[in-house]
Parts: sequence; C-alpha cells; structure tokens
Amino acid sequence: MRQDKDSLGSINIPDHALWGAQTQRAVENFRASGIPISHFPSLIRALAQVKRAAAAVNGSQRRLDPALARAIMQAADEVIGGTHVAHFPVDVLQGGAGTSSNMNMNEVLANRALEILGHPRGAYHVLHPNDHVNLCQSTNDVYPTAIRLALMAETVGLQTALTGLAEAFAAKGTEFAGIEKLGRTQLQDAVPMTLGQEFNAFANTLREDVERLDEIPRLFAEVNLGGTAIGTGLLAPESYRAAVVPELARLTGLPLTPAQDLIESSWDTGAFVLFSGLLKRTATKLSKIANDLRLLSSGPRGGLGEISLPAMQPGSSIMPGKVNPVIPEMVNQIAFQVLGADLTVTMAAEAGQLQLNAFEPVIAYNLLTALTLLPRGATALAQLCVDGLTANPETCRAHLDRSTARVTAMVPEIGYARAAELAKELLLR
Amino acid sequence: MRQDKDSLGSINIPDHALWGAQTQRAVENFRASGIPISHFPSLIRALAQVKRAAAAVNGSQRRLDPALARAIMQAADEVIGGTHVAHFPVDVLQGGAGTSSNMNMNEVLANRALEILGHPRGAYHVLHPNDHVNLCQSTNDVYPTAIRLALMAETVGLQTALTGLAEAFAAKGTEFAGIEKLGRTQLQDAVPMTLGQEFNAFANTLREDVERLDEIPRLFAEVNLGGTAIGTGLLAPESYRAAVVPELARLTGLPLTPAQDLIESSWDTGAFVLFSGLLKRTATKLSKIANDLRLLSSGPRGGLGEISLPAMQPGSSIMPGKVNPVIPEMVNQIAFQVLGADLTVTMAAEAGQLQLNAFEPVIAYNLLTALTLLPRGATALAQLCVDGLTANPETCRAHLDRSTARVTAMVPEIGYARAAELAKELLLR
Amino acid sequence: MRQDKDSLGSINIPDHALWGAQTQRAVENFRASGIPISHFPSLIRALAQVKRAAAAVNGSQRRLDPALARAIMQAADEVIGGTHVAHFPVDVLQGGAGTSSNMNMNEVLANRALEILGHPRGAYHVLHPNDHVNLCQSTNDVYPTAIRLALMAETVGLQTALTGLAEAFAAKGTEFAGIEKLGRTQLQDAVPMTLGQEFNAFANTLREDVERLDEIPRLFAEVNLGGTAIGTGLLAPESYRAAVVPELARLTGLPLTPAQDLIESSWDTGAFVLFSGLLKRTATKLSKIANDLRLLSSGPRGGLGEISLPAMQPGSSIMPGKVNPVIPEMVNQIAFQVLGADLTVTMAAEAGQLQLNAFEPVIAYNLLTALTLLPRGATALAQLCVDGLTANPETCRAHLDRSTARVTAMVPEIGYARAAELAKELLLR
Amino acid sequence: MRQDKDSLGSINIPDHALWGAQTQRAVENFRASGIPISHFPSLIRALAQVKRAAAAVNGSQRRLDPALARAIMQAADEVIGGTHVAHFPVDVLQGGAGTSSNMNMNEVLANRALEILGHPRGAYHVLHPNDHVNLCQSTNDVYPTAIRLALMAETVGLQTALTGLAEAFAAKGTEFAGIEKLGRTQLQDAVPMTLGQEFNAFANTLREDVERLDEIPRLFAEVNLGGTAIGTGLLAPESYRAAVVPELARLTGLPLTPAQDLIESSWDTGAFVLFSGLLKRTATKLSKIANDLRLLSSGPRGGLGEISLPAMQPGSSIMPGKVNPVIPEMVNQIAFQVLGADLTVTMAAEAGQLQLNAFEPVIAYNLLTALTLLPRGATALAQLCVDGLTANPETCRAHLDRSTARVTAMVPEIGYARAAELAKELLLR
Repeated sequence: MRQDKDSLGSINIPDHALWGAQTQRAVENFRASGIPISHFPSLIRALAQVKRAAAAVNGSQRRLDPALARAIMQAADEVIGGTHVAHFPVDVLQGGAGTSSNMNMNEVLANRALEILGHPRGAYHVLHPNDHVNLCQSTNDVYPTAIRLALMAETVGLQTALTGLAEAFAAKGTEFAGIEKLGRTQLQDAVPMTLGQEFNAFANTLREDVERLDEIPRLFAEVNLGGTAIGTGLLAPESYRAAVVPELARLTGLPLTPAQDLIESSWDTGAFVLFSGLLKRTATKLSKIANDLRLLSSGPRGGLGEISLPAMQPGSSIMPGKVNPVIPEMVNQIAFQVLGADLTVTMAAEAGQLQLNAFEPVIAYNLLTALTLLPRGATALAQLCVDGLTANPETCRAHLDRSTARVTAMVPEIGYARAAELAKELLLR
Repeated sequence: MRQDKDSLGSINIPDHALWGAQTQRAVENFRASGIPISHFPSLIRALAQVKRAAAAVNGSQRRLDPALARAIMQAADEVIGGTHVAHFPVDVLQGGAGTSSNMNMNEVLANRALEILGHPRGAYHVLHPNDHVNLCQSTNDVYPTAIRLALMAETVGLQTALTGLAEAFAAKGTEFAGIEKLGRTQLQDAVPMTLGQEFNAFANTLREDVERLDEIPRLFAEVNLGGTAIGTGLLAPESYRAAVVPELARLTGLPLTPAQDLIESSWDTGAFVLFSGLLKRTATKLSKIANDLRLLSSGPRGGLGEISLPAMQPGSSIMPGKVNPVIPEMVNQIAFQVLGADLTVTMAAEAGQLQLNAFEPVIAYNLLTALTLLPRGATALAQLCVDGLTANPETCRAHLDRSTARVTAMVPEIGYARAAELAKELLLR
Repeated sequence: MRQDKDSLGSINIPDHALWGAQTQRAVENFRASGIPISHFPSLIRALAQVKRAAAAVNGSQRRLDPALARAIMQAADEVIGGTHVAHFPVDVLQGGAGTSSNMNMNEVLANRALEILGHPRGAYHVLHPNDHVNLCQSTNDVYPTAIRLALMAETVGLQTALTGLAEAFAAKGTEFAGIEKLGRTQLQDAVPMTLGQEFNAFANTLREDVERLDEIPRLFAEVNLGGTAIGTGLLAPESYRAAVVPELARLTGLPLTPAQDLIESSWDTGAFVLFSGLLKRTATKLSKIANDLRLLSSGPRGGLGEISLPAMQPGSSIMPGKVNPVIPEMVNQIAFQVLGADLTVTMAAEAGQLQLNAFEPVIAYNLLTALTLLPRGATALAQLCVDGLTANPETCRAHLDRSTARVTAMVPEIGYARAAELAKELLLR
Repeated sequence: MRQDKDSLGSINIPDHALWGAQTQRAVENFRASGIPISHFPSLIRALAQVKRAAAAVNGSQRRLDPALARAIMQAADEVIGGTHVAHFPVDVLQGGAGTSSNMNMNEVLANRALEILGHPRGAYHVLHPNDHVNLCQSTNDVYPTAIRLALMAETVGLQTALTGLAEAFAAKGTEFAGIEKLGRTQLQDAVPMTLGQEFNAFANTLREDVERLDEIPRLFAEVNLGGTAIGTGLLAPESYRAAVVPELARLTGLPLTPAQDLIESSWDTGAFVLFSGLLKRTATKLSKIANDLRLLSSGPRGGLGEISLPAMQPGSSIMPGKVNPVIPEMVNQIAFQVLGADLTVTMAAEAGQLQLNAFEPVIAYNLLTALTLLPRGATALAQLCVDGLTANPETCRAHLDRSTARVTAMVPEIGYARAAELAKELLLR
C-alpha cells in the first residue's frame, strides 16, 4: 500500500494502482452496482481523448510545460489504446456528477505521466491531477463531452448490428418471395400476401432505424468543453476555448463544435433523452419482430407453424423433443431491459437542478448498457435465428385456402354488403 | 356577475356560482386538462365528508357557533348527496397541492350555508370559508384524507367489477370442463389440459386481486386529519384532534385512525404508490388475459381458433365478414393507460419535497382515472365478450391430436432421451 | 329513433344523428374513458381530409359517380370546417384498431352527402359508407394517415407556445443581464454567473426543442394511404394510388409522400414512439425549469429567494399571506402526465402484431393529449409566471458574497491545493 | 475439453466444468448482459434447495434409488453451502423461460453426484440430469418456486438495511429534538417545527416499509412446485406432490404451501409485479429523502444550510473546497435504477402468454438487482451520510425568525383575513 493525498487528507491505496486518493475515496464511497466504469471501455477512451486534447492545447499554448503535456498525452494514448483499463474501478452509479470518473482519469494520467517522466507515483508537485491534467477543465464540461463521444462510438456498433439483422431479414424476404400466405390484422384472417413481403418489412423497419441513427453525430456534435464548471468558462482562457474543441474533433474524427449556450449545455440532458427515445424505438421494433417470429413459428402442430426457427437447445427439462424460440425470447427481454433503462434516463434527466445535472452517471450507465444489449440482441437474432429459419409453404398455403381472405377482392364486383354475407356463408361450411 | 374577495383582492364571479374568489382564480390559473374535479364525484363527496366531520366537532365543542355548524353540515350533506356538483370547476391538474380543491369546497359550503341561514353569498363576515368552514383544518390534512376516502369508495366498485368478471370466467370454466386441449408454453405445444382449466385460471387470478384489494381500507385507514399545515397540529386543539377522526369514521363507516406520525403522513405518498402498484398488477393481468383471448380466438381459419368471441361489430371497413376482438383490444388499451398512470403517480410521489408533496392533485387524478377505467374494462369484458364466447371443441381436439403433447407421459417408462427421439420421429411424419 | 343497418343487422340510432349502425355499436361497445373522439378536432378534421382526397380522386377517375363524389367532398368540407363535430361520439379508447373512427367518418359523410343529394339518411343503396365513401380505402391506411395529419397540425401549436415561453425567458434574460449571482452545481455553491445567463439558458433549451419539432413534418410525411388493409394495396387501383397522396398533400399543404414499403408502414408505429420521445424530452425540460423556478423563488425568507413569482392566488387555507408557485407546480404535473402518456404509447407500440398495430387509438389519444397539455402548460408558464416574475438583486448579491465562489478564480495563481485550504478557512469564519 | 450430449447431439465442454451440454449451449446462445446467474447466489442456492427437496422425497418414496438420491442431496448441499458457484455461467437474460437455469442446476448436480458416487462426469446412464435430478419436476414449477425463495431471502437483507437507516435517522431525530426550525410546504415558508421532527419522519416512513416487507413471505409462500409443465402435475405423482412442498418448507424454514390453482400459478406473475411495486415505493421514499437531505444541506453559504453532510470526498476537479452530497446523489440514482427495473418487470409480466410467462428470467434479474441496490444504498446513506451529519441550529433559527411562520398562530385571535394583511406587511419590512 502507498499513501496518496487530496484536500481531505491522506488515504491508503494499493501499490499497483495508478489511481490516487480521490479515486480511492470514490471506490469506498460508492458500493452500489458493483460494476466499475472500466466495464465501458468506450467511456474510458473518450475521457482520455478529452484529456489528450486539453493537454495538447495547453502544451502548445505554453500554459503547460510542453514536457508535462507530452507525458500526459503519451499516458492518454496508452489509455486510448486500451492499456490500464483495470485502473478505473469507480462504480458506474457514483454520486458527484461524474467528478470521480474525471478524477480517476486525472489521477491515472498524472501517475502514469509521472512514471513516464521518471518520477514516482504521487509526486504531484511535479505533475498534479488537478493543476496539470485537469488544467482549464471541470468535470462539468469534460464528463458530458466524454459521454457524447462514447455514445457516438457505440452507435456505430449498433448500426452495424441492425444492418446485419436487416440483411438477414432481406435475404429471407428474397428467399420467401414466392410463398403466398394469409395476412393477418388484429390476429384475424385478413387478405393474401407473401411471406417474402412479411420478412422484407422487418428488414425495412430496421433500416429506418439505421438511417435515423445517422443523425446521432449531429445530435451529439455540440459539446460544452470549454465551459468548465457552469458554462461561464471560468479558468478556461479564450485561446484555450477556441482551440480545444477543434483539437478534439481532429483527434476523434468527429464533427464536434462548441455549444452555442455553454450555460445551458452544462445542465441540459435533452440530447440524452432524445437518444434514449431512439433506442427505445429500436427496442420496441425488435420486440415486435420477436413476437411475430414466435407467433409465426408457434406449434409446431398446434400453432400457426408457418415458419420454423432453428433449434438452438432442448426446450424443456420435462417435455422431450420440445424446442423453444429462445433467441427471440432473449431479444424480448433485452427490449424490456432497454425500456426500463429509458425510464431511468428520463427520471435522471428530469431531476437536474440549476447549473448541472448531478445524475449524468446513471444516464451514461443506462445508455451504454442499452447500446451493449441492443447490438448483441440484433446479432444473435440474425445469426442464431433468422439465418437458419425455414418456411413451411404448405402450412402457409393451407391457412390461406381455408380462410375467406380472397372474398375482399370480390367487393368491387358484388359490393361490401353482399361480400360480407358470402364470407359468412363460407365460414359456415 | 358578482364580486368576491380574497387576500389578493376582488374578482368577478358568475352570478349562479356557489364558489368564490379563490376558486375563480384557480379556474383562470389552471387551464390544463380541461377536466374539472367534479369529474370525480367520489372526491367531491369525500371532501364534503371531511368538512361535515370538522363542522360537527367544532359545533359540538363550541369552537363554532352551533347554528353556523348546522348550516355547514346541511350544505355538506347536500354536496354529499350529489347536489351542487357543477360548482366544482377547478381543473384536476391544479397547482397548489390541492388548496384550490379545498378552497372550492370551503367556498361552496360557505356560500350555500349562508343561503341556508338567509344571507347572501359572499357575506363572509357572517360565515367565512377559512375561518369557519376550514376551522382547525389545512388543505394539507383535508385533501390527503379526502383522497383516501375517495379511493376506498372507488375500490369497492373495482372489486365488484373484477368479481363479476371472475364469475364470468368461472362459468365458462365449468361449461368447458370436459373440453380437452393442448396446453402451450412459450407458444409451443406442451402437454394436455382442459379448456375449463384455462378459464378457471383466469377466474382465480382475478379473485386473488379482489382479495388483495380487501387490504385497501387498512392501507388507507391512517389519515393525517388533525395535523393541519405540516403535521404539527397548529390551530387544531387537542380536543378537536381527538374527536375529528372518530367523527369522520362514524360518518363514512370506514375504520379510520389518526396517523401515528403526523409530520410524516403530511408528506408521505407511499400508500398511493403502493395502491397504484396494485392497480398496475390488475392491469397487467387483464392485459395478459385479453392477449390470451385474442390468441385463442385467432383465425377464424388461419389461427388457433379454439374459441370464438361474440361478434360485437363489423370488423373492417374494407374486408367483408371480418370480425375483430374489439372488447379485449379495448381492455388492452385500458391496461396500457393504467400503466401510464402508474408512472405518473410514481414520478409525482418521488417529487415531494420537505413537509409536503405538492403533486397530490396529479396523483389523485391518475388513481381515480385508473379506478374508473379498470372496472369499465372488466365489466365490458365480462358482459360483451366472456359471457357470449363459445368453444370449438373439434379444433381443440385436433390441435391436441396432431401434437406430440402425449409423449411426455411416456417418460417414466422409456426415459427422457428416448422420448425425445420419439417426439422427433412423430413430427417428421 | 331511426333504424340503421350493417352486416350484423339493424340497430336503433337517435334521429338527430348523422352517424350510422357501426358507430352506434361502437358507442355501446366502448364505454371506457368517456372521452369521445370529437374531443380532438384535429383528428376529426384529418379523417375528413383523407376522405375528401379519396373522393376527389375517385370522382375524377370515374371510379365514383362524380355527383356522389361532389356530395362527399362537400360533406367533408363541412366537417373540416368544424361543423358536425357532435356527430363523432366514439370513445377514444376504442378497440378495433380505429375501424370505428373510420366508420364513424364514413357514416357521417355518407348520411350528410345523402342529405345534400336530397336523399334520406340511411339510403345507402344510393351512397354507401363502405362502397362509396370508403372506396379504395381501409381503416388501416386511412387511420394512421389521419393520425399523422393531426399530429402535424397540433405540433404547430406546440411550437408556437414553446416559442412564446422562450421569448418570455429571453426577455427576462435581457432584463436580468446585470444581476450577478451565485451559480450552483449539485445544490452547492459553485462560481459566479448572472441571473440573465440563467434565464437565457431556459430560453435556449426550449428553442432547441422548437427546432427539433421542425423535423416532425419529415417524420410524418411518409403515409401509407393506398396500402389499404395490409399494405398490398388490394382494391386500390394503381391510378388511385398514384393520385391520392399528392391530392391529400395539395389539400393539406403538407409535404406528404407514399411510404416506400407499404406492408411495413401498415404496422409500424416507430414514428409515434419517436415523436412521443420528443414530447417527453420537452416535458422533462419544462419540469426541470419549473423545479428551478420553484427553487430560486423558495422562501420568501427561509429559502433562496433570488426571484419572486407573481402571486396568482392565496396559497393556503390555513397560513395567511402564503403564496405558492402554483403555475410551475401545474407545469410539473403536466410533465408527469406527458411522461405517463409516453409509457402508454410505448407499450401500445410494442404490442403490435403481424400486419397491424391494433392499439393505434390509444397511441393517438395519448399523443394528442400530450399535445394539448404541453402548449397549455408552456403558455400558462409564460403568461402567468415568467412575464410577471421579478428579481431580488440584493439577495443574489448576498449569496454570492457570503460564498467562496470567487476562490476558484485564484487557482491559476495559488494552485488547487492551496485554494482548497483557503476556501476551508473562509467557511470557518 | 470433454464431450457431453443432449437431445440435439454432442458438444464440447471445458474439462473443469461441472455443467453439461444444455448449459454449454445456453452459454453460447445467450450473449446478452454478460452477467451470469451466479451473480445472484441466493437464486443458485434456492434452485439447489428445490432440487434437494425433490431428491429427498423421491428417495424416501423409492421413486429414485436412495443411493442416487443421497448423492444428489449431498451435491445440492455443497451448492447451497456456496461451493461450485463458478459452475453457473448462463446469462441472466436467457431465453427459454428459465430452462437453462434449471438445466444448469440439473447438470451440475448430476455431474457432481456422479463424482461423489465414483463415476466420471457425463455418465448419465447412471444418473441423468433429467431422469433423476429433475425427476417429477419441470422448469416451470422449479424456476418460479426458486425465484420466490431467493426473493424471500434477499428481502431480509433489505429489511435489515432499511431498519439500520431508520435507526440512524431516529438517532438524529433525538439529537435534533430541541432545534426549532421553519417548516416548508411547496418550498415556501410555512409554520414552525423542529429538526428532530423532520428526521423522525424519515425514520418512520422507512419503518413503514420494513413492516410492509413483513408481508413478503405471505405473498410468496404459495408455490407451484408439483405442477410441473403447466400446472396439471403431469409426471408428478400424488404422493410426491403431497410431500415436496412440506419438505422444501422444512428445509428452508419458510411457510411454503402449494398454490391452490396450479394452472394459474404456473403463468401468473402478479406476485412479482406487486413485490416490484413495493420496492418502487421504497425507492421513491429513499429518493425523496435524498432530495431533502441535499436541499437542507444546500449551500454551504448560498443555500438552506440547515444541516451539514459529512465530507466524503473533494467535490470538484476545478472548484477548490467544494464538497458535494455524493452519497444522497448515489441513492437518487439507485432509486432511478430501481424504478427502471420496475418498468422492465411490468412489461415482462404483461407479456406472458397462455400457460407460461417466458420472461421470468428478466423479472428475476431485475428484482434481484433492485434487492441488491436498495440495501447498499440504504446502508451507505446511514453510515456515510446520516451518522455523520450535523445540524446548524443558528441557521435553522435565523430562517424561522426571518419568516412569517408565526403569523398563522394568530389566526384564532385576529382571523384569517387580518392575519394575511399582517403577513404581507411583515414581508415588506
């Protein structure tokens, strides 16, 4: 164990730890979910990117000794590259509006930079977590900016997974193009369609969401970096503010711009609520599709049985030969989880007060969780269910033939009222 | 128009109105839902019951001139009896923690009592809405108490409706006792059961909720009447506090007792959250049952078709002869509405601050709405759907015979592994 | 009473009613909310616009006798103009996926057109609700299209109200530009700002939502009109399908286009979920702002007291002179109501099955309710609260001076650690 | 790696693994949350308890070779004791209605029992996961029963934590009994109270929830064990059914009884919804209390400042000396997380179909998560916040003295109207 110090005094820290006193306090204070922030590498990477951009600007503008700046940037590059991930132990459900996440990064970078410069960890008189790593910054501009970066990064993965699932459905749409079947509204026999049309619709509804997610960079592009504590930019000189967002944009390749009203953007979580609404929409679509797949494959003998899902595992501990739609059921549950996450995000957003929303950690946690679950669900659905599913054309045909679905087509000739009578007669046969 | 006055000054009021200045201001301030509190007669009645109890105690304890007390009680009896309902125009989504509802009642009773005593409306020097009708009371003890009374009253109606629906299902359970059918888990063919068992289960699950609702009087029996503004009982003398809850209990026939911690009970809305959870549970059950009825009646030819729902109206503007499960669909939507109401109640409950929850009006509105919708849904489901539904025993039998549902029964003889192979073989035939 | 007939038989209808048998059945079937669809004139107008467009196309393409088409169009114009609103009595929580709303419109237009042509109501052999008014249409393309039109129309009102509120805040932002005050994060003293900045941020956050709502026409522009029952376009000839959406676009002045995948757009409710998410975002912002206003005006003596809200009504039935923030409290409750509505919309969207979502009525009801409540809340907040609120500059200044908010500015000179010690010392004085 | 076999064929399994083929398939199928079921030891223990009870009954009734029964019971005891926890790797968000959890337990117990009997893992011809460990059982009665056991066990921990927090508040209630302060309603100055009353109310509101949780055993006492696949008890002989629940009750010390309607209790999740509602109520109370603590400690100079929370960590990366209410903020976020979990539970409960609710895994996951978070939040609040918080009596007194809170007490003498004028005059001074 070594000792580290902050404004509240000294505290013991494990020898191996790159983190410092404030991180250690946070670890001991926040025993909530048991999930450390390192669970979300994209958030760690994003925080390090912000630090790197600030150090680059501060170094080049001689606000920071260039040697220190270089060491911080090197340490940040290591974190961005995925090293040191174990050194971010703070709980995702932390109090403090993200301060502990920011300080965890400040301390890791300070200690790692000190090592790089040949100093021992904790030699903060040389390179200080606050005075140097956090120079011109506040948690309140760093943390929301980093969340935005992380969400943009994860959104790409979601788009890839949804596109893959859409393609899987579209392939089946083509494969099933010639299979005529009964269309159903309100679970009642309606009019004819093809199984291909049914599967293409699944593809198209997901593609709409992929397109919609293209707007995310625009939604999150405005960042409040430079606003510091409450958006007034205190301690962030004009030259720094002019340079840091462009530097971060360059570093990340994202179209970032400074928010127009830094006061507002320091507390506003509207972009997160809107994004959560987008994820909720995708979740409801996936759940609806999973429901349809389960319904169309119900049976195999006592249900609709128009399609068969691949058997992924024995379905019952007691009923031999039973095979269940386990992948769609997993997808339903993922969707329910995402809808719950959306509520948590909403409540946290509503609870912001005055110049800050103290509940951004729970917002970040839930959005990142949703962004983890949805792609996994979509990919599993594509690879373990849709790719291997098969049609039962005879059953499709039989349902169509048994129904009165073709009576509607006679309306132009015989009128609605007479056609209704005809349908009734047919059903009595 | 006549003029009425309160501590903010004079204001014009329609001549016919029994209400006064504060009500009029509230009408003009709260243009939100367009739904007046008179939409919920049980809440109006409950407020009048509280006022009558307070007047009775104040009169008999000579805190209030007995003649005034009698006039107030007579006016309250008229309101309890349903007269004057049009004189409660304040919006249900009012700000002010219910003050406007309480003052609306104080003003109506004051003006009506003045009439009874032969004085003109507004002669508040004789009988004042605050000094006499509201004597020893505050909105903060009157209003939560009245909400509890109203909820207890409405709960009876819900129990009646749920019992009626349970009986309708039980009758079908008996009628369908001999109809063998396929049981399904995860929408897949499982093992045999009877249609009677399926319908009896619907009856029993609802009966559990009826029983659960028996606990409501206990949940709401503790009232904070006598606590006045924040639970310290300021302006409510000991003798009044000792007498008013028993008097209200006597008047309503409900087992009311004073809350043990009047400070806590002034702000606590836990009982409302819990009650909302109960209604949510009932809503999820009704929705699940509606889903099952829609699924079992799907078809008539291309679905499960094991039961037929009574045709309530033509099902389609374009498809002749189509009949839809419109009553279960209405029940689903009522359930969704109740689940939304539960969220609103939850958010309002969480938002209480310090000595009061200012959002009790929206809590009351949503709980009373749920208590209106659920009985209507249950009754419609019983009378317009369950009572008239019929079984299709041949279809039930055919699904069972086609399936491998009977293989499970062979496991004790041939073992799980061999039975699984057998089931597979059967499905290949 | 007169008799009217549909495929289920005859039914009595009030003599004055323009509606017919199917509407009457729906009225008797759906006793749920007690709120008729006429409660939302924009939805009634939108349904009539769709009917008018279809009649225009059918008439000009000689699918429909031009005289009948003209009569239908004239009847539709009357409904669009607001006449006949009392003839739409079906409950908003109707089962049947909107069929009863569509048939209500078909019957009213048929009977009114018959009158125009000199025939009695019910002379459906001349002009039939289904065969003529509903020609080439299905509820399943008419109703979702009409909901979109109604939502687009109502969105304009929301934008106007939010813009008005933003302007009210901006005016105060300008008025309070010179008032220095303490900025607060996590309810703790942070760093200096101005009251003007605080109010401008309210303005800007709302303006963002106004801008976001500009996207709504694009979100809803794709309509499935022409898809009929399940999107296959059965009974809608190619020439009709090519003409009807452009005709509706012309009539409404909206940039409507036919959906690319009519099958998908027949069941997809993703646009409604997304729109609900937008409204939810606005609701959380309004609630956050209301919370801040209540907090900043807390007191008047024992709270922050930095601003004073206009006194709208006496605040208490027991505490003389108390004035409460009743308008912000109403806004909070409106927000909670909108969040509940969003959950209902989400659940209904998730529950769609196969070729249709049967729960669009509850979706429409909740979105239209939210679109009614939010503008009313925003307008009341602007006119009854923000316009009249005043600053207390001395209190603002006193809080700032008492705090250590200015220590942060010393960090560049003395470093974070020394500044922290200084702040501690100051607080001990 | 070794090979294991189930009805779908052979599959490779890590050599060290006690689990078998079906578990392995589930691990590969369900890559969702990344959280294995072993994350919840109480659920693992409960599953093993059910298995032990069944083996005991089957052994003593000679349905199962007593030597095999003893080996299964010994293996189950090891699992109950906490050994083998690493052998339960299936994801908590599994499809299949819990079958994979049940089979994971069946396979671990079979393989461990085989070892005990001197056989190699996988020698299922001697002792089979389905034919012997799962004898007379189905996932559909085992899994819901085990969830109930786990929830009952975890509830005790919640009660302990809430009691601890209530005691912490009560201690402060006593300590602060003599501190007079201003009571506030709607954030406005109301009437006098003591700080002790305020803290005692926190204690009492939590005690109510502790009492309410005493009902949980009764809520969950009815189990469907013995119902097997759908509640008909297929493959569970009468003698087994009569003995197994009493045996499980004996083993666990819980008052378990067989459900009256086994069909209904196979699919009903009402008890889970109700329990979730209880947890939601506790969450809203904790959040409200956290809000109050943050508000009362706001400042230290520019807020209410009536209490001071212990400083747990430096509050800001930029503002020296700032200390934030990080523990209450963590509690708020835990509450929001629990409210989200409640929504997920509700959606899953509503989605049950016919004879089973396939979504019990996500229900169990969310309830167990809530039961983990709430006690941690309550304990942290007690130990890291309430225990160390201090009052600022001078500030309390100053707020009271500055306000008009004492005017209300004059109403009986001078009347409401005159008192209101007096209050206005006082505020103008």
